[in-house]
Amino acid sequence: MFVRTIEPAFYDTDALGHINNTRLPAWFELARNDLFRLFTPDLDPRQWRLIMARMEVDFRAELYYGSDIEIRTYLSRLGNSSFTVTQEAWQEGKLTNVGHAVLVQFDHQAKRAVPIEGALREALEAHLQPLEEPVGA
Amino acid sequence: MFVRTIEPAFYDTDALGHINNTRLPAWFELARNDLFRLFTPDLDPRQWRLIMARMEVDFRAELYYGSDIEIRTYLSRLGNSSFTVTQEAWQEGKLTNVGHAVLVQFDHQAKRAVPIEGALREALEAHLQPLEEPVGA
Amino acid sequence: MFVRTIEPAFYDTDALGHINNTRLPAWFELARNDLFRLFTPDLDPRQWRLIMARMEVDFRAELYYGSDIEIRTYLSRLGNSSFTVTQEAWQEGKLTNVGHAVLVQFDHQAKRAVPIEGALREALEAHLQPLEEPVGA
Amino acid sequence: MFVRTIEPAFYDTDALGHINNTRLPAWFELARNDLFRLFTPDLDPRQWRLIMARMEVDFRAELYYGSDIEIRTYLSRLGNSSFTVTQEAWQEGKLTNVGHAVLVQFDHQAKRAVPIEGALREALEAHLQPLEEPVGA
Repeated sequence: MFVRTIEPAFYDTDALGHINNTRLPAWFELARNDLFRLFTPDLDPRQWRLIMARMEVDFRAELYYGSDIEIRTYLSRLGNSSFTVTQEAWQEGKLTNVGHAVLVQFDHQAKRAVPIEGALREALEAHLQPLEEPVGA
Repeated sequence: MFVRTIEPAFYDTDALGHINNTRLPAWFELARNDLFRLFTPDLDPRQWRLIMARMEVDFRAELYYGSDIEIRTYLSRLGNSSFTVTQEAWQEGKLTNVGHAVLVQFDHQAKRAVPIEGALREALEAHLQPLEEPVGA
Repeated sequence: MFVRTIEPAFYDTDALGHINNTRLPAWFELARNDLFRLFTPDLDPRQWRLIMARMEVDFRAELYYGSDIEIRTYLSRLGNSSFTVTQEAWQEGKLTNVGHAVLVQFDHQAKRAVPIEGALREALEAHLQPLEEPVGA
Repeated sequence: MFVRTIEPAFYDTDALGHINNTRLPAWFELARNDLFRLFTPDLDPRQWRLIMARMEVDFRAELYYGSDIEIRTYLSRLGNSSFTVTQEAWQEGKLTNVGHAVLVQFDHQAKRAVPIEGALREALEAHLQPLEEPVGA
């Protein structure tokens, strides 16, 4: 599991006085940087090997500007060429959001999925932490 | 069904040369303005009556900068106090994304859900178009 | 002069109940699409010929969610390889923001400025509308 | 002077493979959190005392995804009710951007500027570091 702290900016808020819902997919992408480094160690976009197939975010409680947010990131499923990243947002001890992103190892030139094998597969398995409940189903 | 056209901006792209995945939840929120007017006709945020409970977005094809995107918005479920908004993104005749947002009619002062009744319920029913497949469940 | 209408999204607001200041540079970039087409008619990012050197935005009045914003875009200066784009945001008959962006015609492979000549220069001159007051000074 | 580190997210890039220009005003606002705490220690938006009057950003070099960015924030001018915040972005030892934001202490209910006095003025003076060159000229 990877753990990150995000400090909200004023522009992350909306007129309801809380963090706008569209910021969660953005923060979750930022927090996937650790995972991205397993695929592309120097994060060079020209060597990018991933594409998003699906995202889900549950909103269980509101997030606010003015205190840090902890993002926990782990794999909840590892398939042949795709995997599910589960991410949690916590603020002041409360779980506010759970997100699932289905990512696919992808050859952006050939526009096709690529199996996850060898050392990369082992590196991902080290962050695999199956959910007790089925994901999005 | 509400239909909108969105013109991508350069900042909507990412280093893969396509539209970044985090823009879909944002564009879908913009396209819900028509629906928001059923709840708050003048869109005054101080009279806001909705909160997001869940969002899902499928990424079926890439979107690109340089041609318009059509967003189609309709209700696929209408519950007691919550409903599911289904949204499709189309570019050059191709369905690229399908999103589902579960919204709840919500009293932001009392912090509780409010049943959808009367004329508002009828107005929402006019945009109800049940999915053939079950939504995210 | 190019004229565009932008409809604010809920996520454009912030906790002060108005449009967040960081949205202006974004909307101004969107509204420069018309100008970008003079350099790259199909807006293909691989053929991009511009880079930003400087931006300025004045905030004269607040912008609000719930009513359309008109963006007016013109050139206020045309130099050898650079030019200044001046942009105004108007809402309900009030000028709320004036922005200036200094853009440079740029060869992204060679990483150097390129003089603006011939038909392109003429096309830009058609949108040149010198300011009465000096820019940023 | 306040110093912050920002880690770029993939969504901060654009199709040119670098960080999009619209992210600088956003990152600079995030980095002003330290300064905002001098006005509103708990950052409660309902007690907000600032409004933006003007922003400027110079783009001297490109920023890239994959390595951290240092933001340095200080006051370069302290007027009666307004002040100028100067911010620098550095990546891998290179100064890439300089920004100036003119902020005004502001009563959002009364919609008027408020003089900066007493302990607050002293706290701001401690971060005052006059520029050698005039701002915006």
